[in-house]
Amino acid sequence: MDLSLSYVFKNLNKDQLKRIEAVATELPIEEGQEICKEGEEAKALYILKSGAVELVTMVENDFELPISILRNPGDIFGAGVLVTPFEYALTARCFDAGTLLKFKRSKLQQLMKDDRDISCIMMSNLAEYFLLRLKESRREIKIHFSTLLKSYR
Amino acid sequence: MDLSLSYVFKNLNKDQLKRIEAVATELPIEEGQEICKEGEEAKALYILKSGAVELVTMVENDFELPISILRNPGDIFGAGVLVTPFEYALTARCFDAGTLLKFKRSKLQQLMKDDRDISCIMMSNLAEYFLLRLKESRREIKIHFSTLLKSYR
Repeated sequence: MDLSLSYVFKNLNKDQLKRIEAVATELPIEEGQEICKEGEEAKALYILKSGAVELVTMVENDFELPISILRNPGDIFGAGVLVTPFEYALTARCFDAGTLLKFKRSKLQQLMKDDRDISCIMMSNLAEYFLLRLKESRREIKIHFSTLLKSYR
Repeated sequence: MDLSLSYVFKNLNKDQLKRIEAVATELPIEEGQEICKEGEEAKALYILKSGAVELVTMVENDFELPISILRNPGDIFGAGVLVTPFEYALTARCFDAGTLLKFKRSKLQQLMKDDRDISCIMMSNLAEYFLLRLKESRREIKIHFSTLLKSYR
Protein backbone atom coordinates (compact mmCIF):
# COMPACT_ATOMS: atom_id res chain seq x y z
CA MET A 1 0.00 0.00 0.00
CA ASP A 2 1.18 3.52 -0.81
CA LEU A 3 1.60 5.07 2.64
CA SER A 4 2.11 8.54 1.21
CA LEU A 5 -1.66 8.53 0.55
CA SER A 6 -1.93 9.13 4.28
CA TYR A 7 -1.80 12.72 5.38
CA VAL A 8 0.56 12.01 8.24
CA PHE A 9 3.17 10.34 5.99
CA LYS A 10 3.23 12.82 3.10
CA ASN A 11 6.53 14.44 2.10
CA LEU A 12 8.52 11.44 3.37
CA ASN A 13 10.93 9.85 0.90
CA LYS A 14 10.76 6.24 -0.32
CA ASP A 15 13.35 5.02 2.14
CA GLN A 16 11.56 6.61 5.09
CA LEU A 17 8.21 5.19 3.94
CA LYS A 18 9.78 1.73 3.70
CA ARG A 19 11.01 1.92 7.27
CA ILE A 20 7.55 2.95 8.44
CA GLU A 21 5.82 0.24 6.44
CA ALA A 22 8.15 -2.32 8.03
CA VAL A 23 6.61 -1.73 11.48
CA ALA A 24 2.98 -2.01 10.32
CA THR A 25 0.82 -5.09 10.86
CA GLU A 26 -2.40 -5.89 8.99
CA LEU A 27 -5.59 -6.06 11.01
CA PRO A 28 -8.76 -7.52 9.43
CA ILE A 29 -11.92 -5.83 10.77
CA GLU A 30 -15.56 -6.93 10.80
CA GLU A 31 -18.70 -4.83 10.68
CA GLY A 32 -19.57 -3.42 14.10
CA GLN A 33 -16.16 -4.15 15.61
CA GLU A 34 -14.87 -1.42 17.93
CA ILE A 35 -11.27 -0.57 17.09
CA CYS A 36 -10.49 2.13 19.64
CA LYS A 37 -12.40 4.04 22.28
CA GLU A 38 -12.58 7.78 22.99
CA GLY A 39 -10.66 8.82 26.11
CA GLU A 40 -8.64 5.61 26.36
CA GLU A 41 -4.85 5.50 26.14
CA ALA A 42 -3.81 5.60 22.48
CA LYS A 43 -1.67 2.57 21.73
CA ALA A 44 -1.71 2.53 17.93
CA LEU A 45 -2.22 4.61 14.81
CA TYR A 46 -4.50 3.07 12.16
CA ILE A 47 -4.66 3.47 8.40
CA LEU A 48 -7.57 2.27 6.31
CA LYS A 49 -6.53 -0.18 3.61
CA SER A 50 -10.02 -1.34 2.62
CA GLY A 51 -13.55 -1.23 4.03
CA ALA A 52 -14.95 1.69 6.02
CA VAL A 53 -14.61 2.98 9.59
CA GLU A 54 -17.05 5.22 11.45
CA LEU A 55 -15.76 7.82 13.93
CA VAL A 56 -18.13 8.84 16.71
CA THR A 57 -18.05 10.80 19.96
CA MET A 58 -20.21 10.20 23.04
CA VAL A 59 -22.67 12.88 24.14
CA GLU A 60 -23.59 12.56 27.83
CA ASN A 61 -22.68 8.86 27.95
CA ASP A 62 -25.89 7.77 26.25
CA PHE A 63 -25.85 9.19 22.74
CA GLU A 64 -23.32 8.78 19.95
CA LEU A 65 -22.67 11.75 17.72
CA PRO A 66 -21.26 10.67 14.32
CA ILE A 67 -18.20 12.67 13.28
CA SER A 68 -17.27 11.05 9.97
CA ILE A 69 -17.00 7.83 7.98
CA LEU A 70 -13.58 7.00 6.56
CA ARG A 71 -13.80 5.22 3.21
CA ASN A 72 -10.63 6.14 1.33
CA PRO A 73 -7.53 3.96 1.47
CA GLY A 74 -4.93 5.98 3.38
CA ASP A 75 -7.45 7.61 5.73
CA ILE A 76 -6.03 7.64 9.23
CA PHE A 77 -7.39 7.59 12.77
CA GLY A 78 -5.87 7.27 16.22
CA ALA A 79 -3.49 10.16 15.49
CA GLY A 80 -3.71 11.01 19.21
CA VAL A 81 -1.07 8.32 19.53
CA LEU A 82 1.57 10.79 18.31
CA VAL A 83 1.02 13.63 20.78
CA THR A 84 0.60 13.93 24.53
CA PRO A 85 -1.59 13.05 26.37
CA PHE A 86 -1.53 9.97 24.04
CA GLU A 87 -5.27 9.50 24.16
CA TYR A 88 -7.87 8.55 21.53
CA ALA A 89 -9.99 11.62 20.76
CA LEU A 90 -12.80 9.58 19.16
CA THR A 91 -14.26 6.08 19.12
CA ALA A 92 -13.70 4.15 15.88
CA ARG A 93 -15.93 1.30 14.76
CA CYS A 94 -15.84 -0.81 11.61
CA PHE A 95 -18.63 0.25 9.25
CA ASP A 96 -17.82 -2.05 6.32
CA ALA A 97 -15.55 -5.07 6.74
CA GLY A 98 -12.01 -4.59 5.46
CA THR A 99 -8.39 -4.33 6.52
CA LEU A 100 -6.41 -1.80 8.56
CA LEU A 101 -2.71 -1.13 8.86
CA LYS A 102 -1.83 -0.89 12.55
CA PHE A 103 1.24 1.02 13.79
CA LYS A 104 2.08 0.49 17.45
CA ARG A 105 3.00 3.62 19.38
CA SER A 106 6.26 2.18 20.69
CA LYS A 107 7.41 1.33 17.15
CA LEU A 108 6.50 4.75 15.76
CA GLN A 109 8.20 6.50 18.66
CA GLN A 110 11.35 4.46 18.12
CA LEU A 111 11.38 5.34 14.39
CA MET A 112 10.87 9.03 15.16
CA LYS A 113 13.63 8.97 17.77
CA ASP A 114 16.05 7.26 15.38
CA ASP A 115 15.30 9.62 12.48
CA ARG A 116 14.78 13.30 13.34
CA ASP A 117 13.72 14.02 9.75
CA ILE A 118 10.86 11.52 9.93
CA SER A 119 9.82 13.07 13.22
CA CYS A 120 9.94 16.64 11.92
CA ILE A 121 7.98 15.89 8.76
CA MET A 122 5.36 13.80 10.54
CA MET A 123 4.83 16.42 13.25
CA SER A 124 4.47 19.13 10.66
CA ASN A 125 1.92 17.00 8.76
CA LEU A 126 0.08 16.33 11.97
CA ALA A 127 -0.12 20.02 12.93
CA GLU A 128 -1.52 20.74 9.47
CA TYR A 129 -4.00 17.87 9.78
CA PHE A 130 -5.30 18.90 13.22
CA LEU A 131 -5.64 22.53 12.14
CA LEU A 132 -7.72 21.39 9.17
CA ARG A 133 -9.96 19.31 11.43
CA LEU A 134 -10.20 22.27 13.84
CA LYS A 135 -11.38 24.55 11.05
CA GLU A 136 -13.98 21.94 10.00
CA SER A 137 -15.16 21.62 13.54
CA ARG A 138 -15.50 25.40 13.90
CA ARG A 139 -17.41 25.48 10.62
CA GLU A 140 -19.86 23.03 12.16
CA ILE A 141 -20.28 25.23 15.23
CA LYS A 142 -21.03 28.11 12.89
CA ILE A 143 -23.77 26.10 11.17
CA HIS A 144 -25.39 25.32 14.52
CA PHE A 145 -25.07 28.94 15.51
CA SER A 146 -26.41 30.27 12.26
CA THR A 147 -29.47 27.96 12.53
CA LEU A 148 -30.00 29.23 16.06
CA LEU A 149 -29.73 32.85 14.89
CA LYS A 150 -32.33 32.30 12.18
CA SER A 151 -34.79 30.79 14.65
CA TYR A 152 -34.61 34.01 16.70
CA ARG A 153 -35.03 36.37 13.78
CA MET B 1 9.50 38.03 28.59
CA ASP B 2 9.68 34.29 29.25
CA LEU B 3 8.80 32.82 25.86
CA SER B 4 8.53 29.30 27.28
CA LEU B 5 5.20 30.45 28.77
CA SER B 6 3.91 30.09 25.22
CA TYR B 7 2.66 26.67 24.25
CA VAL B 8 4.42 26.73 20.91
CA PHE B 9 7.84 27.42 22.45
CA LYS B 10 7.80 24.96 25.34
CA ASN B 11 10.58 22.36 25.63
CA LEU B 12 13.04 24.64 23.83
CA ASN B 13 16.33 25.31 25.62
CA LYS B 14 17.57 28.75 26.71
CA ASP B 15 19.78 29.18 23.69
CA GLN B 16 16.96 28.34 21.28
CA LEU B 17 14.56 30.69 23.11
CA LYS B 18 17.14 33.48 22.86
CA ARG B 19 17.41 33.05 19.11
CA ILE B 20 13.62 33.17 18.81
CA GLU B 21 13.34 36.22 21.04
CA ALA B 22 15.90 37.98 18.86
CA VAL B 23 13.52 38.02 15.88
CA ALA B 24 10.53 39.38 17.83
CA THR B 25 9.36 42.97 17.66
CA GLU B 26 7.09 44.69 20.16
CA LEU B 27 3.71 45.90 18.92
CA PRO B 28 1.60 48.21 21.13
CA ILE B 29 -2.14 47.64 20.60
CA GLU B 30 -5.17 49.79 21.37
CA GLU B 31 -8.69 48.77 22.27
CA GLY B 32 -10.73 47.84 19.20
CA GLN B 33 -7.69 47.54 16.91
CA GLU B 34 -7.86 44.60 14.47
CA ILE B 35 -4.62 42.66 14.50
CA CYS B 36 -5.32 39.95 11.95
CA LYS B 37 -8.25 38.79 9.87
CA GLU B 38 -9.74 35.33 9.36
CA GLY B 39 -9.00 33.85 5.94
CA GLU B 40 -6.18 36.28 5.11
CA GLU B 41 -2.61 35.22 4.45
CA ALA B 42 -0.86 34.67 7.79
CA LYS B 43 2.23 36.87 7.93
CA ALA B 44 3.07 36.77 11.64
CA LEU B 45 2.65 34.85 14.87
CA TYR B 46 1.63 36.92 17.90
CA ILE B 47 2.20 36.45 21.61
CA LEU B 48 0.36 38.42 24.25
CA LYS B 49 2.70 40.33 26.56
CA SER B 50 0.07 42.49 28.26
CA GLY B 51 -3.55 43.55 27.70
CA ALA B 52 -6.20 41.26 26.19
CA VAL B 53 -7.10 40.05 22.69
CA GLU B 54 -10.46 38.75 21.52
CA LEU B 55 -10.64 35.96 18.91
CA VAL B 56 -13.78 35.82 16.77
CA THR B 57 -15.05 34.04 13.66
CA MET B 58 -17.57 35.38 11.14
CA VAL B 59 -20.93 33.65 10.71
CA GLU B 60 -22.52 34.39 7.34
CA ASN B 61 -20.53 37.61 6.89
CA ASP B 62 -22.76 39.57 9.22
CA PHE B 63 -22.40 38.10 12.68
CA GLU B 64 -19.30 37.59 14.80
CA LEU B 65 -19.12 34.49 16.95
CA PRO B 66 -16.70 34.96 19.88
CA ILE B 67 -14.25 32.10 20.28
CA SER B 68 -12.14 33.23 23.23
CA ILE B 69 -10.44 36.13 24.98
CA LEU B 70 -6.70 35.82 25.55
CA ARG B 71 -5.58 37.45 28.80
CA ASN B 72 -2.52 35.53 29.95
CA PRO B 73 0.99 36.64 29.02
CA GLY B 74 2.32 33.99 26.67
CA ASP B 75 -1.05 33.29 25.00
CA ILE B 76 -0.54 32.95 21.26
CA PHE B 77 -2.57 33.55 18.14
CA GLY B 78 -1.87 33.50 14.43
CA ALA B 79 -0.40 29.99 14.70
CA GLY B 80 -1.71 29.39 11.17
CA VAL B 81 1.51 31.15 10.16
CA LEU B 82 3.45 27.95 10.82
CA VAL B 83 1.49 25.49 8.65
CA THR B 84 0.16 25.45 5.12
CA PRO B 85 -1.99 27.05 3.80
CA PHE B 86 -0.46 29.88 5.92
CA GLU B 87 -3.80 31.47 6.64
CA TYR B 88 -5.30 33.08 9.74
CA ALA B 89 -8.04 30.80 11.11
CA LEU B 90 -9.63 33.56 13.21
CA THR B 91 -9.90 37.32 13.46
CA ALA B 92 -8.04 38.89 16.41
CA ARG B 93 -8.98 42.23 17.90
CA CYS B 94 -7.52 44.10 20.85
CA PHE B 95 -9.89 43.87 23.84
CA ASP B 96 -7.75 45.71 26.40
CA ALA B 97 -4.81 47.89 25.38
CA GLY B 98 -1.41 46.30 25.83
CA THR B 99 1.61 44.96 23.98
CA LEU B 100 2.19 42.02 21.66
CA LEU B 101 5.33 40.25 20.55
CA LYS B 102 5.23 39.87 16.79
CA PHE B 103 7.20 37.15 14.95
CA LYS B 104 7.32 37.53 11.18
CA ARG B 105 6.75 34.32 9.19
CA SER B 106 9.92 34.73 7.14
CA LYS B 107 12.05 35.06 10.30
CA LEU B 108 10.45 32.05 11.98
CA GLN B 109 10.82 29.96 8.84
CA GLN B 110 14.48 30.90 8.57
CA LEU B 111 15.09 29.93 12.22
CA MET B 112 13.30 26.60 11.73
CA LYS B 113 15.26 25.92 8.58
CA ASP B 114 18.58 26.68 10.27
CA ASP B 115 17.82 24.57 13.34
CA ARG B 116 15.97 21.29 12.76
CA ASP B 117 15.60 20.80 16.53
CA ILE B 118 13.69 24.06 16.91
CA SER B 119 11.50 23.04 13.99
CA CYS B 120 10.82 19.56 15.37
CA ILE B 121 9.95 20.77 18.85
CA MET B 122 7.76 23.65 17.64
CA MET B 123 5.85 21.41 15.22
CA SER B 124 5.27 18.84 17.91
CA ASN B 125 4.01 21.58 20.27
CA LEU B 126 1.79 22.90 17.55
CA ALA B 127 0.24 19.50 16.79
CA GLU B 128 -0.49 19.11 20.51
CA TYR B 129 -1.97 22.62 20.66
CA PHE B 130 -4.25 22.18 17.63
CA LEU B 131 -5.44 18.78 18.91
CA LEU B 132 -6.34 20.39 22.25
CA ARG B 133 -8.29 23.14 20.48
CA LEU B 134 -9.96 20.50 18.29
CA LYS B 135 -11.13 18.59 21.35
CA GLU B 136 -12.48 21.83 22.87
CA SER B 137 -14.28 22.64 19.67
CA ARG B 138 -15.85 19.17 19.55
CA ARG B 139 -16.89 19.54 23.18
CA GLU B 140 -18.74 22.69 22.14
CA ILE B 141 -20.51 20.84 19.32
CA LYS B 142 -21.57 18.24 21.88
CA ILE B 143 -23.08 20.94 24.09
CA HIS B 144 -25.10 22.30 21.15
CA PHE B 145 -26.14 18.79 20.26
CA SER B 146 -27.05 17.83 23.78
CA THR B 147 -29.23 20.97 24.13
CA LEU B 148 -30.91 20.05 20.86
CA LEU B 149 -31.53 16.49 22.06
CA LYS B 150 -33.15 17.72 25.27
CA SER B 151 -35.50 19.98 23.37
CA TYR B 152 -36.77 16.93 21.45
CA ARG B 153 -37.23 14.69 24.48
